[in-house]
Amino acid sequence: MSFSPSAAPNTALIGVPGGRHLLDTPALLLDLDGLTRNISRMAEFVRTHGVQLRPHAKSHKSVEIARRQVAAGAVGVCCATLGEAETMVAAGIPGVLITSPIVIDGKIGRLVNLAARAAPGGVMVVIDHPRNIEDLAAAAAAANLAHPLDVLVDYAAGYYRTGAADADAVVALARQVAGLPQLRLRGLQAYAGNIQHIDGRTERAAAAATVRASVQQVIAAAAQAGIHFGIVTGAGTGSHAFDAQERVFTELQAGSYVFLDGEYSRVLADAEQSAPFDIALFVQASVVSVNHPDWVTIDAGTKVLATDSGFPVVAAGQRPGSRYVFAGDEHGKLVGPAEERPDLGERLEFVTSHCDPTVNLHDVYHVVQGDTLVDIWPIDARGK
Amino acid sequence: MSFSPSAAPNTALIGVPGGRHLLDTPALLLDLDGLTRNISRMAEFVRTHGVQLRPHAKSHKSVEIARRQVAAGAVGVCCATLGEAETMVAAGIPGVLITSPIVIDGKIGRLVNLAARAAPGGVMVVIDHPRNIEDLAAAAAAANLAHPLDVLVDYAAGYYRTGAADADAVVALARQVAGLPQLRLRGLQAYAGNIQHIDGRTERAAAAATVRASVQQVIAAAAQAGIHFGIVTGAGTGSHAFDAQERVFTELQAGSYVFLDGEYSRVLADAEQSAPFDIALFVQASVVSVNHPDWVTIDAGTKVLATDSGFPVVAAGQRPGSRYVFAGDEHGKLVGPAEERPDLGERLEFVTSHCDPTVNLHDVYHVVQGDTLVDIWPIDARGK
Repeated sequence: MSFSPSAAPNTALIGVPGGRHLLDTPALLLDLDGLTRNISRMAEFVRTHGVQLRPHAKSHKSVEIARRQVAAGAVGVCCATLGEAETMVAAGIPGVLITSPIVIDGKIGRLVNLAARAAPGGVMVVIDHPRNIEDLAAAAAAANLAHPLDVLVDYAAGYYRTGAADADAVVALARQVAGLPQLRLRGLQAYAGNIQHIDGRTERAAAAATVRASVQQVIAAAAQAGIHFGIVTGAGTGSHAFDAQERVFTELQAGSYVFLDGEYSRVLADAEQSAPFDIALFVQASVVSVNHPDWVTIDAGTKVLATDSGFPVVAAGQRPGSRYVFAGDEHGKLVGPAEERPDLGERLEFVTSHCDPTVNLHDVYHVVQGDTLVDIWPIDARGK
Repeated sequence: MSFSPSAAPNTALIGVPGGRHLLDTPALLLDLDGLTRNISRMAEFVRTHGVQLRPHAKSHKSVEIARRQVAAGAVGVCCATLGEAETMVAAGIPGVLITSPIVIDGKIGRLVNLAARAAPGGVMVVIDHPRNIEDLAAAAAAANLAHPLDVLVDYAAGYYRTGAADADAVVALARQVAGLPQLRLRGLQAYAGNIQHIDGRTERAAAAATVRASVQQVIAAAAQAGIHFGIVTGAGTGSHAFDAQERVFTELQAGSYVFLDGEYSRVLADAEQSAPFDIALFVQASVVSVNHPDWVTIDAGTKVLATDSGFPVVAAGQRPGSRYVFAGDEHGKLVGPAEERPDLGERLEFVTSHCDPTVNLHDVYHVVQGDTLVDIWPIDARGK
């Protein structure tokens, strides 16, 4: 006895007129025109500002989207995990930067194996600890790598999630790398995740300026020690417009801009100009129960919508007076005025509150243009 | 160029002494002895109390665990989604009850297709709306099903997520089903998700008693109308001990008991006797950065730990004074006293705050016994 996987019912809808409204729900939707515009706009932005873009693939985990970003001029992609990097390198994506230290033995072995198969510069990794540097060099030596392993020093830049604490620590790590033939110092990473979601353009700009000033001090201290960073990488979607200034960063890591979510849309909307990106990611759900007078129940709960940044919101143009409330792992409630009440089986689309962890719940993107399902793309590195 | 999938590095560790401490992290761990005890204890509980068990597979989404539950006496499994049901039926799991209405056209087609391939009674589904009953009957007729489609009337039982609102509505739906040759009325579902997590045994018992009384009224009203429910199904891990009383429910749907999570462990611990189940599910993480004096950073964030029910906690026996704080999609911070501070690369295990959505983030269970990785089981219905 064999049954088709869950994506299969929707595969048959590709190209069918109105297929967007016939999908098996819950379904993750990617608006192709919005995605294309977002990729173009960021590509244009970095061109205009004279910086490079190495967008973070942890947002989309998709080879197809990475290819489109590279085709639009990105120098590569950032990855949060070794599994993501393995997926991207295997698919031929160039310039993969792993933005978190790779520490435990098994992972270091896989990293060196990955670097051995990739072109020089095809895989880079950040370091923030002397012992990790020793371990990477030893593994590279043991594997007899044909080219040195490319590393960037990670600087905590105010967030202190990963990274060296100050300029002295950065310089010490850079010197250690420079003294090891198995490693090649490629640059500096300074990602301040804590400033990306600050409300208010003025406040966010000020926070980003503080981070940049501290990065500039680190760069200056390194220069005095004779160390020059070819790459200085950082910035997210929330700070990208500021971090392209003053030539501190040579490249930006922004990732969420490809989709925009409820959180970033709100943050960027209070900019002087309105948000430069379009919301391109939605979750479609169906109404499965209509027996309560005050709400209807839909088939999208915490297993298809990330809960860490608040509630999803009904997509523009659909029921502006109604709101989503989580109602368990598989269900949500739509609460709203009687005149907006949907009928049993009706479909609704929601803007996710946080795109990255929502994408990580799904196996595929349903790529739509208008009312048409034009393609289904795998979320290649989901769960990796 | 091809690289092994993310699970592969751990496959090589099966049977290796101490393999539990060599895993690629973050990793979902399932303690086999705890799982086995939990399955046995619930099997023994329902045997003693003269009710059946049809445990909810939405918690584990695993064919292997479903098989073990059935082998221990369960009459089948509950599924929250059609995709889960397809997975379970395809694997030969009997008595699959879909606990949420199947409403949209594409899904109804798949449901009838599934019922056609399964044995009579192999697939059952709940209904809570007259139009849905018509749609199911029409689809069953169109498919020329060899046996009627088995349905249960869903009663809201205070939660109002899905289900008919009151006894009159239940009776009307049951009558409608009884009048259609394509459908067969199998029973009544009354699941009160809202009472499962009530703190305090007395308060939870009282809430469960109120629900049971209302279910009993529904059953009585139906009996007066000449309708008898063969199956009366409900109860979760939080209310199972109460819902086995008074012969209201013929079977229990509890699911989380196989793992127990932080939330249920807390709820059940204030029972008169201590919690009868063991915590069997953990997430293992590694320390990836140690540069801040007040915390270390570990490689487990919102993409491997569900965030909807608070923070995970450090597993028993490990660093009782330290606590986990989310620090983004891929990271957490462990904050604690200096004497408990772990070193770079050290592994820690955490009890998840909510098991179901945490399991849904992972592709496999790393099945451990003591220090040994004894097997890796797929989470077959993940994302379905």
